[in-house]
Amino acid sequence: MDFEAELKKRTERAENIIKNYLPEIAGPQATVIEAMDYSVGAGGKRLRPVIMMAAYEMCGGEGELVEPFCAAIEMIHNYSLVHDDLPEMDNDMIRRGIPSTHAKYGPGMAVLAGDGLLNSAFETALKSTAFAGSADDNANILKALSVLADRSGIYGMIGGQAVDVEAEEKNLELPEEDILFVYENKTSALLQASMVCGALLAGADGKTADVFSEAARCLGVAFQIQDDILDVTGTTEEIGKPAGSDERNGKKTYLAYLGMEGAEAEQRRLSAQAHDLVAGISVADGGEAAEAKEFLTELIDALVDRRK
Amino acid sequence: MDFEAELKKRTERAENIIKNYLPEIAGPQATVIEAMDYSVGAGGKRLRPVIMMAAYEMCGGEGELVEPFCAAIEMIHNYSLVHDDLPEMDNDMIRRGIPSTHAKYGPGMAVLAGDGLLNSAFETALKSTAFAGSADDNANILKALSVLADRSGIYGMIGGQAVDVEAEEKNLELPEEDILFVYENKTSALLQASMVCGALLAGADGKTADVFSEAARCLGVAFQIQDDILDVTGTTEEIGKPAGSDERNGKKTYLAYLGMEGAEAEQRRLSAQAHDLVAGISVADGGEAAEAKEFLTELIDALVDRRK
Repeated sequence: MDFEAELKKRTERAENIIKNYLPEIAGPQATVIEAMDYSVGAGGKRLRPVIMMAAYEMCGGEGELVEPFCAAIEMIHNYSLVHDDLPEMDNDMIRRGIPSTHAKYGPGMAVLAGDGLLNSAFETALKSTAFAGSADDNANILKALSVLADRSGIYGMIGGQAVDVEAEEKNLELPEEDILFVYENKTSALLQASMVCGALLAGADGKTADVFSEAARCLGVAFQIQDDILDVTGTTEEIGKPAGSDERNGKKTYLAYLGMEGAEAEQRRLSAQAHDLVAGISVADGGEAAEAKEFLTELIDALVDRRK
Repeated sequence: MDFEAELKKRTERAENIIKNYLPEIAGPQATVIEAMDYSVGAGGKRLRPVIMMAAYEMCGGEGELVEPFCAAIEMIHNYSLVHDDLPEMDNDMIRRGIPSTHAKYGPGMAVLAGDGLLNSAFETALKSTAFAGSADDNANILKALSVLADRSGIYGMIGGQAVDVEAEEKNLELPEEDILFVYENKTSALLQASMVCGALLAGADGKTADVFSEAARCLGVAFQIQDDILDVTGTTEEIGKPAGSDERNGKKTYLAYLGMEGAEAEQRRLSAQAHDLVAGISVADGGEAAEAKEFLTELIDALVDRRK
């Protein structure tokens, strides 16, 4: 497999799906829709929908049923960035090289645009019912919606953000287990939603869903540790943001507890585990499912073996 | 029917359902959960869940299937208040006589608490699947989820808020049709979700759902016009907030276009229409459905014939 070509093809497909489900800029409320589309349209790697689609195909999923969920997970990821950038949160004026949503549309409209994206994620995911052909499809959609909601909420992404925000506001030094909590929820949770929703929508059983969930948990934590390592060892040019910012901000990361060598070992252990768990899921030989599996395992390796 | 006693009984029931579904304050993310529970627990009339339950019973609904949706609609109503009160929005430090969520927990945590409530609304509504006994129940839940998401989002409540916020920020004088748009979306939309979700979860057909939707639209606009009228004719003591605030804030309401007499006539016309539409829905004689119908029509009358 030419991994880079495959990644490019799959990213373009995700990009088209996302565009297809973005709300049309119209009506008296056109400004808030424009702000939503602006933040989602600003780019990004589209990793989560790419991962979801691969998990769906690995489990034998076909057709458009998964597509609304692919758009939904990207809306959730983007709303979290819009709200993160707000003045009362990180107060970031630039995101992906262009003005952040509140910098362009004002903070009031950015609050509403973030709310609009989170709400639209569920509106959009529910559009999968249009492609449901059976009562089983409906049951799978309901299961996937529950996973999407759980992993995005206070027991997932929002929970991780809240611990992170509180630590910053109150200048707390988080103990090691709370740092792990932040990584597992702020980063792993949406990766878990991506893999597990993809699998469930294809009709995978609970056991397979659990394997994907654990693989995504490992992947997210490994990814986050790699971020911490790069913040110390990378150059500003390589990582595309100021190097050494964690230390300057007094932010305690896993490195503080594990040291550089320990962190590198833990990162290797977790990424190997993520790889092995996905590699261990059996799929039909040849065809789309096998291709998707090869792609997803290579993607896992690429994500944690990176310099940016 | 002793309407006041019935209202009290039904409000208490709604209060218990809401408490039952509020997330438990625990874990490293306890603070954000506490902020969520604080804002929902601060009270309010619980109108939306009371209305949803009545519509459910009118359509023959029984058992707990509707309860997660009752809690969900109240979470959505409350998240909108939490975000409305933020410094970049209305910057209100007091809500229901106590510090607003951002005043108590800080604006960063209030953003996350609002996000958490919106997300929890869908997490909670999805718990209705635990009470689903058939593929039909699953299909009804999916339909109700779509209505809940649509009426809360950019084609409903958020859309109305966005137009309102933009008009305030840019000091725009909204034309009459945009004022109607704000009323229909900021106020009617969640009432529509309440009635229509209740009906659909009980298995009502699309035609009945449409009648409820139009009744709730009329009720919301009538309610909002009554608010405008009371702002001019009520005393601060009666309405529990500073009288005359619309005029002082330079806020254009329906009164500016219809005049006092015209507004009163329109309010009477719309509330009569809401009453008649609900009264026109046929239900089984005697029993819970008939009681719920009598209650709901009286509630509509009471809501628009008020001094506060």
